Amino acid sequence: MFRMSNMKKIIIHEVGLRDGLQMEKQTVPLEQKIEWIRKLLTSGVDIIQLGSFVHPLKVPQLADTDQLFKYFNKPENKAGSVVLSALILNEKGFERGEVCGVEMYNMGVSASETHSMKNSGMTITEATQRIIGIAKNVIDAGKLVQVSVQSAFGCGFEGEIKEEKVLAIVKEYINAGIKNITLADTAGHAVPDQVSKLFDSLNKLDSSIVWGTHFHNTYGMGIANCYAALKAGVTYFESSVAGLGGCPYTKVAAGNVCTEDFVHSLKRSGYGNNIDLSKLIELAKDFSSFFNRELPGLVYKSGVIDYK
Amino acid sequence: MFRMSNMKKIIIHEVGLRDGLQMEKQTVPLEQKIEWIRKLLTSGVDIIQLGSFVHPLKVPQLADTDQLFKYFNKPENKAGSVVLSALILNEKGFERGEVCGVEMYNMGVSASETHSMKNSGMTITEATQRIIGIAKNVIDAGKLVQVSVQSAFGCGFEGEIKEEKVLAIVKEYINAGIKNITLADTAGHAVPDQVSKLFDSLNKLDSSIVWGTHFHNTYGMGIANCYAALKAGVTYFESSVAGLGGCPYTKVAAGNVCTEDFVHSLKRSGYGNNIDLSKLIELAKDFSSFFNRELPGLVYKSGVIDYK
Repeated sequence: MFRMSNMKKIIIHEVGLRDGLQMEKQTVPLEQKIEWIRKLLTSGVDIIQLGSFVHPLKVPQLADTDQLFKYFNKPENKAGSVVLSALILNEKGFERGEVCGVEMYNMGVSASETHSMKNSGMTITEATQRIIGIAKNVIDAGKLVQVSVQSAFGCGFEGEIKEEKVLAIVKEYINAGIKNITLADTAGHAVPDQVSKLFDSLNKLDSSIVWGTHFHNTYGMGIANCYAALKAGVTYFESSVAGLGGCPYTKVAAGNVCTEDFVHSLKRSGYGNNIDLSKLIELAKDFSSFFNRELPGLVYKSGVIDYK
Repeated sequence: MFRMSNMKKIIIHEVGLRDGLQMEKQTVPLEQKIEWIRKLLTSGVDIIQLGSFVHPLKVPQLADTDQLFKYFNKPENKAGSVVLSALILNEKGFERGEVCGVEMYNMGVSASETHSMKNSGMTITEATQRIIGIAKNVIDAGKLVQVSVQSAFGCGFEGEIKEEKVLAIVKEYINAGIKNITLADTAGHAVPDQVSKLFDSLNKLDSSIVWGTHFHNTYGMGIANCYAALKAGVTYFESSVAGLGGCPYTKVAAGNVCTEDFVHSLKRSGYGNNIDLSKLIELAKDFSSFFNRELPGLVYKSGVIDYK
């Protein structure tokens, strides 16, 4: 099984089924999601986020998250070495996750007070304490936990987010024993120099942490920022097939970094991985056909470069 | 006036009116082009490519290039410090350019034999000699010249292009006294590590050359490659408003790096420039409305981040 504590290669966490689908007006039927997840399971991505345990009336697109976990936890549908993750917002989410067999829990705190209040109804301090409390329960239950700092590179409401604010949350995570920490660029404000600088500061805090990123392509900087992070030692990336995605509680929403575009470029850059691009491209085409529009990803339209 | 020999800041060469329009089925009327160029002249970009002296039957979209130069060389329409450039393919292009007052000539040789034959009907050796001959005439005439190596990072027909092939052409350019040399990623195959490596090799050849890039976003890597080039010391970038563009003689055509997305990120990264983003965004919206479709650029849709 995939081991959080000993990651050497580049880890791809596919979040399109959560971050992507929550932005779509159209709710995807359970059977359709199962078909898509089956394709993802054969693609070679490391972690797949199946959904989020939010209130079904608030985000009806993700109301079947429990059912998806139950289905893929049946021995005949098991995911092999792929980790199945879920986003949770509170204790109730953790309880639901434990009932249906979540392997990895994702949680986050925003570094912007305004975004924190809009997203969670809590101040940064309150949200951090709550998330850390839940994270400790996850660790005690022997499950994987990954926490993020949202709006880490700027906020659509507040503008600049000072590095100290991000570092303060990260330090609390580290003190709580959390080993997998992601910076999320919720508003898409990051630029490469800023990414390098922030991860350089994080690297100085604790060299045993697995640092990750979650970039949105709102202003076209998603992949450039991934490469800046990669150069700063980051090995864990969240992305969405076809570039689906966007947070509904931010000011200007836009898709995540496109999984197959990023993986295609990594393969061409010599970063070995076992991902089967043809599966991801097939899925991107499925998404485009289901939602009946052209999606942001490029490689699913251009095709794979067929050498090297 | 803009001086090629003494560039310190980042130079933006807007090529959408040539590289973009040649790919569009719809021919843009002269009056419409004039209106767009007027907007560009007030935007703060450094160089504007008005067109190309190709045969009007071959590329009817650019048939009015001579007229555009005549118009903008009238004292009342003069471009101020902005340099007006044209792409030329042969001696005839230089003759036409001299008649209508071109300030800067752009030419290129492909590092791929197959692309060279398809594009120019000449081998790389023949094309290099011809282009160098014309470049010398341009220099003798006291005009600016900028030459490129096309397909410098890979070719849709041939696949990998060895670094030696690129360096061989560049060395011939340098020996001919050319000081402004651009690597064009015609097929969009480049990845950041490759860009860094190739420019590191070029920097060793001659530190007095102004190196430039011309990236296409075929596989989503355009801006990431610009940042890799920037880190390697490149200060000269060709791009297209709204991400228009693409070479008709390559296998998979796609737009250039989007000018306003790149400039927006540069401003946020602290690279000072005097570009008025609002003018570029206005123009991107004009393009989108004229061609009646959504174009690849993101900032013209998302809006500018309004701090820092």
